[in-house]
Amino acid sequence: MNAAQKECLEACIECMKQCNQCFNDCLQEDDVKMMAECIRLDRECADICALTAKAIQSSSPLMKETAQLCAEACKACGDECAKHDHQHCKDCADACYRCEKACRELAAS
Amino acid sequence: MNAAQKECLEACIECMKQCNQCFNDCLQEDDVKMMAECIRLDRECADICALTAKAIQSSSPLMKETAQLCAEACKACGDECAKHDHQHCKDCADACYRCEKACRELAAS
Amino acid sequence: MNAAQKECLEACIECMKQCNQCFNDCLQEDDVKMMAECIRLDRECADICALTAKAIQSSSPLMKETAQLCAEACKACGDECAKHDHQHCKDCADACYRCEKACRELAAS
Amino acid sequence: MNAAQKECLEACIECMKQCNQCFNDCLQEDDVKMMAECIRLDRECADICALTAKAIQSSSPLMKETAQLCAEACKACGDECAKHDHQHCKDCADACYRCEKACRELAAS
Repeated sequence: MNAAQKECLEACIECMKQCNQCFNDCLQEDDVKMMAECIRLDRECADICALTAKAIQSSSPLMKETAQLCAEACKACGDECAKHDHQHCKDCADACYRCEKACRELAAS
Repeated sequence: MNAAQKECLEACIECMKQCNQCFNDCLQEDDVKMMAECIRLDRECADICALTAKAIQSSSPLMKETAQLCAEACKACGDECAKHDHQHCKDCADACYRCEKACRELAAS
Repeated sequence: MNAAQKECLEACIECMKQCNQCFNDCLQEDDVKMMAECIRLDRECADICALTAKAIQSSSPLMKETAQLCAEACKACGDECAKHDHQHCKDCADACYRCEKACRELAAS
Repeated sequence: MNAAQKECLEACIECMKQCNQCFNDCLQEDDVKMMAECIRLDRECADICALTAKAIQSSSPLMKETAQLCAEACKACGDECAKHDHQHCKDCADACYRCEKACRELAAS
């Protein structure tokens, strides 16, 4: 595994964790309706991050294409999280943007 | 694959589909807060059904233990869905209870 | 859900099942080494099909991009399965190519 | 999240990573047939670890039952890995046994 792959693997796993936490915390907010898109995207982004981590660890022939999709999912989720003031949304947005960057670097490598 | 396994496999896949649909439809309801537990359990039940389907198809040594957990997840999700009048919740509850039954039969076989 | 989405959803679920079955059956062949790439791709294709099914059912903003990745995974897995004479590989290749076609149609719709 | 949950979450994620790595490395060994059960269990254990991590982060009502299943999966995978001399199998067995312990402590808490 080269440096870009290692960094992307760690970024995907951290982003998966933050998305799963944000999913849980959004469901406990007073105004759940306002968080509906965040909940939807948290789930999807966590699943795609898990898939991308597996692709990196499996020397997948589709590793770069998967990382490309993951970058888009991270951007969508990060942009939604960034609209909200909850600390879990801010933490999740940070992890999403870091993962987006690592995925784009892997895809371009 | 014996008859109990085949039936459980189909029940898991149908339940996974209904849970994923109910997850999506709950997020689009006017009162999302009322659906928060349904959304949480839909996701979890869908994931456990997918895992159980894989365990059945993989001759897993943990097939029965996995089916037992799936039965509990289906019961929890079905009981929550059954509290709501939305058609997607009713459809999901039906699929959950069918899957719970098939999982218990597999676990006891 | 429109017609292309419904067809793609069913194709993804059928392909997921065939890939999981082929994964299991390949591991029980006499010559497992010959099946190594098939085993790797079966797992990856099954996971991506499950993800794509969720994306279709979740009105995901990344539905088409996910279907595009799924088409590539189905092609890679189908091409590998098609090299082997085992019935489970032939069945899997058929499901992969059907799913590839449905994914491409969804991505282009 | 209490201390047992935090420790179990980290153990699950580390075990998921080691199982996915061992899966990949087993498929590249000269004698793949000897590794067939390891490959099967690596996949299953990685998937159950990912599920358990989600259950812990989601305050799931089935958290302890899921951790119990995960402990069994980790034991099965660890026992199989421990039969082999490859470094990736030894590393995976270590992670499996640590995760088994953390899961049992969570289940008993």
